[in-house]
Amino acid sequence: VCGMEWYGYAALGILTAFLSFLMDFSVLKLLNAHQWLYEKLDGNRLLQFFCWTLYPVCLCVFGSVFSHNICPFATGSGIPEVRTILAGFEMPHFLSVTHLFTKFLGLICTLAAGSTVFLGKVGPFVHLSTMVGAYVSNLCTLIQPNKKDNATREMLVVAAGVGVASCFGAPVSGVLFSVEVMSSHFALRQYVPCFFSAACGALTFRLFSFWSGEGETLQALFKTNFPSSLPFYPLEILLFALLGLLCGAVSCCYLFCHRRILQFINTNSVLVKMLATDKGLYAGAVAFFLACVTFPHFAGRYMASKCTMKQLLTSLLKGGQWISQSHNASVQLEPDPLLEWNSSESPLFFTLTFFLLMKLWMLVLACTLPVPAGYFMPVFVYGAALGRLVGEGAAFLFSSTSINPGGYALAVWILCLVSAAAYSGAVTHTLSPALLAIEATGQFSHAVPALFATLMANAVARSRHRPSFYDALTICK
Amino acid sequence: VCGMEWYGYAALGILTAFLSFLMDFSVLKLLNAHQWLYEKLDGNRLLQFFCWTLYPVCLCVFGSVFSHNICPFATGSGIPEVRTILAGFEMPHFLSVTHLFTKFLGLICTLAAGSTVFLGKVGPFVHLSTMVGAYVSNLCTLIQPNKKDNATREMLVVAAGVGVASCFGAPVSGVLFSVEVMSSHFALRQYVPCFFSAACGALTFRLFSFWSGEGETLQALFKTNFPSSLPFYPLEILLFALLGLLCGAVSCCYLFCHRRILQFINTNSVLVKMLATDKGLYAGAVAFFLACVTFPHFAGRYMASKCTMKQLLTSLLKGGQWISQSHNASVQLEPDPLLEWNSSESPLFFTLTFFLLMKLWMLVLACTLPVPAGYFMPVFVYGAALGRLVGEGAAFLFSSTSINPGGYALAVWILCLVSAAAYSGAVTHTLSPALLAIEATGQFSHAVPALFATLMANAVARSRHRPSFYDALTICK
Repeated sequence: VCGMEWYGYAALGILTAFLSFLMDFSVLKLLNAHQWLYEKLDGNRLLQFFCWTLYPVCLCVFGSVFSHNICPFATGSGIPEVRTILAGFEMPHFLSVTHLFTKFLGLICTLAAGSTVFLGKVGPFVHLSTMVGAYVSNLCTLIQPNKKDNATREMLVVAAGVGVASCFGAPVSGVLFSVEVMSSHFALRQYVPCFFSAACGALTFRLFSFWSGEGETLQALFKTNFPSSLPFYPLEILLFALLGLLCGAVSCCYLFCHRRILQFINTNSVLVKMLATDKGLYAGAVAFFLACVTFPHFAGRYMASKCTMKQLLTSLLKGGQWISQSHNASVQLEPDPLLEWNSSESPLFFTLTFFLLMKLWMLVLACTLPVPAGYFMPVFVYGAALGRLVGEGAAFLFSSTSINPGGYALAVWILCLVSAAAYSGAVTHTLSPALLAIEATGQFSHAVPALFATLMANAVARSRHRPSFYDALTICK
Repeated sequence: VCGMEWYGYAALGILTAFLSFLMDFSVLKLLNAHQWLYEKLDGNRLLQFFCWTLYPVCLCVFGSVFSHNICPFATGSGIPEVRTILAGFEMPHFLSVTHLFTKFLGLICTLAAGSTVFLGKVGPFVHLSTMVGAYVSNLCTLIQPNKKDNATREMLVVAAGVGVASCFGAPVSGVLFSVEVMSSHFALRQYVPCFFSAACGALTFRLFSFWSGEGETLQALFKTNFPSSLPFYPLEILLFALLGLLCGAVSCCYLFCHRRILQFINTNSVLVKMLATDKGLYAGAVAFFLACVTFPHFAGRYMASKCTMKQLLTSLLKGGQWISQSHNASVQLEPDPLLEWNSSESPLFFTLTFFLLMKLWMLVLACTLPVPAGYFMPVFVYGAALGRLVGEGAAFLFSSTSINPGGYALAVWILCLVSAAAYSGAVTHTLSPALLAIEATGQFSHAVPALFATLMANAVARSRHRPSFYDALTICK
């Protein structure tokens, strides 16, 4: 009944979701292996140190050398390249199957390096799904040669939307994100295919997670347990607005550092020579340095470096005020991410502040690694931590002074969620992170505050025509 | 710091939300007055009959005569006109302040006629907010004359998005709906203003509702109480897909009837003459006929006609299986909308089927009324009822046979929500109702099934190039 291209769209969604699931699965296994080894070596601090540092170093070196030799364009997030392709430039080597394979393996290496390197999967996944889209489009041409000319381009536009959707299982925000980041005009003709493919992808991704035994992933990806009876008080909106402005200011700072270090790397003669010939050496050195800093018996204990990124995010978004919970949290036997943040030797506010200060420059440094990596998730986690700090501070103020006679408990997790959305929105100059935060947590009651704070943060970040994160990357290439 | 137009966008959102709140407030008062009068006349059936029929007849006649005399273009939903304006045609009389005033008063009359006439507020509200946008844009020109040429057009595009957003307090789906219905291309430059203005509108609308004493409206507009621990089983997706196909088929039937009656009215010589001279007479006759049919002591008792549209929707979306709940529901003293659906004299399946069959032709008839009215909400409620019928049937089958050994209870409300989204999406040929259903109920866990069913319904409704609801209206004008 319907045209060939619809089967293509469905196949694209299902394939991308399968890749996404396969990646998550392998990364989880690799991370578990690392953690198992680290736990086994408990007692011997030197061996633990080597285990902690050499594992990510090996992965980063392998990823960088591998991608350098097979397909030198595979490094970085890939979003600038996809943008260029969608703008109409022909770059066939960016859509080859070799490239797909390289990027896939390289990204697994980067993600398996864990919270040491602290990089995400969103950006490369958009690129990966574009490559899958090009492949599916070629297949369609083989089966049905007398098709329209611009079918390939349409498939690529759709594929860019599917990438984010199958990465989080969030179809709506995936499509919106790709619209915002990719193009300046959007034809409504591509709207339904985009949503169709994204829904297929998100559905497949969630079904795979369900069948693989992690039975809970059919529901929201990051489980949160927000009481939905009373979402927010009217006066809290002021707090949200202030938080949005703060996020915007911090994002400006981050983007400034990021632009500076990109300039430095592109102009410093030693580094330019090193990156041209020995990418592996550079990647290894940076990864080793980052791993040393995050070593749990050194500074890492003050920044919860034992947790994976998903654990970090889940713990940051969990529950109300942490300070009041710290007493009974120590009773539990299972390892609790909350304990990483707030224990007797590392008090809460110190940990959070330390985490925020350290991660700022570590993230900037990690962005220069010549491996396939995404920069969205780290920024999102960073925003959540920022919100947690502000929220705990505000809750502490409210509870200790006499401002609060009604025993009103500030809902700190809302601030985390809102701040994560606002910060990542400000860095990428988009609004869809607000929707993504809502869609990934599965609660829509906080859509309005999140959107509001993201708008505030965007207003600060976009003022004076500052380039966005992806703009900066595009300019440097 | 920022340009004049941003203040304009904020003012637009706040003004529209204020209008929306004012309308809701007056309509609620008028509906309550009608209900109070009807209850007071209990015992005297003839007086009750007159009260039930003459109240909406008077309102409809007043609305139609008033709008005919002051501003004859104010009838109908207004979305076709807004589309034409946004396509670039100059229609200044469609954006005048007189028109705004007429449409506002006329819409209050229509809505206050309640479930008899069964019409909504979305369409006219998009038109209203466009008029507010034109007004604000003129103000901006007065203050700052040396601005760009296309600022008015941009303001109108933004205003179309704000209409839906402040109608439901749902910013994201409001913007998406206006994008889908209004234009074929969307410039990303208008994206941020749209969301900014829509967020302002939604926030103001919710704050007004909060301050007016209905303290719960800061949270989701239609309160539902879905357990979010286990959103859906994988196999239920098949059920969702089938439901989507069914919704698509029913929507085709509805759209066919609607096109036929529009043709009939435009060609039948008696009706054409009557509508040209005596709009009030026609409106009164149709409203009287509809009121007679819905009279609670006549056929109305089998279609829950005592409830307002909001009560209908809330009750349809509430709880699990109704059949099992019917026993203890009769213990309660307060009037329960559930009892309207499922009592001893009107069994559940009969009521639902009767409701669906009657409302189909009544809705088509009501659409011909020459008053300002929206056609989105009735369609949404109709879809929810369709889903409830299918869901109760499926639950009945599952519970009575041996297919279901694990005591698995089908979540009927999900089917209602999904079906409402799919049906209204199929009628308007859009995808955003899926998002609207999610945003209005405040639970995101069911986004994927809703999107999936809406896509299925759209596939059926769009096949063979059938015109959408708004297309049919545009063609007839």
